[in-house]
Amino acid sequence: MGSINIKELALQLNLSKSTVSRAFRGHSDINMETKERILKVAKELNYQPNHHASNLRAQKSKNIAIIVPQIANNFFSQAIDGIETVAREKGYHLLIYLTADHFESEVAYVNDLYNGRADGIIMSVSGEANDHSYMNKLQEKHIPLVFFDRVYDDIHTAKVTTNDYGSSFEATMHLVAAGCKNVAFLVTNKQLSIGKMRMQGYLDALKHSGLPFRDELIVDCSNDDTINYGILTNAFKTLTIDGIFASVERLAFATYYVCHDLNIDIPGKVKVISFSSLEIASLLNPALTTITQPAYDMGVQAATLLFKMLEQDDPVNDQVVLSSKIITRSSTL
Amino acid sequence: MGSINIKELALQLNLSKSTVSRAFRGHSDINMETKERILKVAKELNYQPNHHASNLRAQKSKNIAIIVPQIANNFFSQAIDGIETVAREKGYHLLIYLTADHFESEVAYVNDLYNGRADGIIMSVSGEANDHSYMNKLQEKHIPLVFFDRVYDDIHTAKVTTNDYGSSFEATMHLVAAGCKNVAFLVTNKQLSIGKMRMQGYLDALKHSGLPFRDELIVDCSNDDTINYGILTNAFKTLTIDGIFASVERLAFATYYVCHDLNIDIPGKVKVISFSSLEIASLLNPALTTITQPAYDMGVQAATLLFKMLEQDDPVNDQVVLSSKIITRSSTL
Repeated sequence: MGSINIKELALQLNLSKSTVSRAFRGHSDINMETKERILKVAKELNYQPNHHASNLRAQKSKNIAIIVPQIANNFFSQAIDGIETVAREKGYHLLIYLTADHFESEVAYVNDLYNGRADGIIMSVSGEANDHSYMNKLQEKHIPLVFFDRVYDDIHTAKVTTNDYGSSFEATMHLVAAGCKNVAFLVTNKQLSIGKMRMQGYLDALKHSGLPFRDELIVDCSNDDTINYGILTNAFKTLTIDGIFASVERLAFATYYVCHDLNIDIPGKVKVISFSSLEIASLLNPALTTITQPAYDMGVQAATLLFKMLEQDDPVNDQVVLSSKIITRSSTL
Repeated sequence: MGSINIKELALQLNLSKSTVSRAFRGHSDINMETKERILKVAKELNYQPNHHASNLRAQKSKNIAIIVPQIANNFFSQAIDGIETVAREKGYHLLIYLTADHFESEVAYVNDLYNGRADGIIMSVSGEANDHSYMNKLQEKHIPLVFFDRVYDDIHTAKVTTNDYGSSFEATMHLVAAGCKNVAFLVTNKQLSIGKMRMQGYLDALKHSGLPFRDELIVDCSNDDTINYGILTNAFKTLTIDGIFASVERLAFATYYVCHDLNIDIPGKVKVISFSSLEIASLLNPALTTITQPAYDMGVQAATLLFKMLEQDDPVNDQVVLSSKIITRSSTL
């Protein structure tokens, strides 16, 4: 005997697809009689729920895993806040994993999550390597995955990002409009989608403004604050720079430290804009102009997508793109 | 037949107490022969491991629960970083619970953790209520608990705190030495041990300096930034204040916002010192003088104590007190 799909089963039962699906997930909001009828007919017609194994597991763990580079970071802590709000409402628990941008940790965590400790994963990637084959097994195991902010382009799954290209274009134009002719772009993750998008926005804005592209103004930084301090000190001493576009928050802080120490006036000598989720950006000296991502909302959206995947049979490949906002403050005036 | 304790069993076996204990926890670093001998003799002598049920569970979950008021907070995110470092080394996973300072959430989380989802709990309390009886069940269930920073005095367990009294005394003396005669103490958790200690340090320093105590200078704030803005605006408008001692970081930020908006010069008109784990305190306008707690180390210590409890039979009631450090910056010069 062949098997039927959920649509055909629902038709036979004269019920909605969603009601049928819920019966297989043990939802308590379906009355027992209906549920028994569904299970009986399903058995008769040889219906096999798609993700049966994963559903059974889902009911067992009620954990969601969050994999992020760091937690002591304004963007990620606010995003986790958003994820937590949704997860708590659903009665789910949060497992937190920190990669410190180490690819090996990321691989180890993902491998460790095959065993059903978590029902789904929300992740902002480390981005250190090009081989992401270890992620494929999640799909085999029917463990839903949502990427947010930092994503792998070659892994097809739900993603929540911001308009990185557009806001980088706008940020660069903002510096140009403020009079900058030598805008340095500070970057840490050139090989990641997010790094590429932000850099392209910068490059296109230069072109659009008729400013020449100078390779040395793309300043490749690291994840280590001390190393970045050295890199930026060297950049300010050897290059003509009148504008800084920091593609991540920590690079704006490093810029501030270096400029303070080298007595370079912000915004008099150099103007600074940065992607940043720092809630007290306006209390900095000088107040920092930011491209502010909706970090909390991104967390909410990522969790919402994950629950959509957990609650329905079909895979979810939604690509949600939220808008960042440029908030002008003293550092670019 | 009566039962014997682990000490007597170890004596019989001519082994250390710790080796015997490890045999009952399934540690892989004990050779099989020894383990079998231990289990055989234990059975013959009717030895009942103390926390047998909890140990069995421990081997099952390998999760640690962290309960904190918030995650988008420099102190807690750094402390979690420290906990994570230790937990990862031990092969443990972290469950994160955020109370947002709501006592009800705290109770719900703790009640939910009776079921064995986590092997142990590390917690910084919400402090909204006086009835902590819900915590006693953890002891009954042999789920180890470590408090850090914000503790309940009436619950006897391992605790990691900082020298809150001493550093508050010192912070107040610092303001007095800088010329302040009207030092306001901003507080949110007067009823918590930590709030009391910090206030006592402030009060004793005033006394020590021969300054009169004025009740209205103890400014009772909330966990809501907008409400605090109102409270502090009112305080600055109605009271003579030339020094601010913020007992938590968010109250220093609120002070900065209010002083900026009311055009009150820091440090010219009012000097500000605050408990704070903000890594970029020196980038604020003006750079903020802080009492900096060793947040990361507190996390490491708390996790180390928890693993000590998980790995040995006897309860651990260690009280670890780490030192905070006053770092003088422009806001009190």
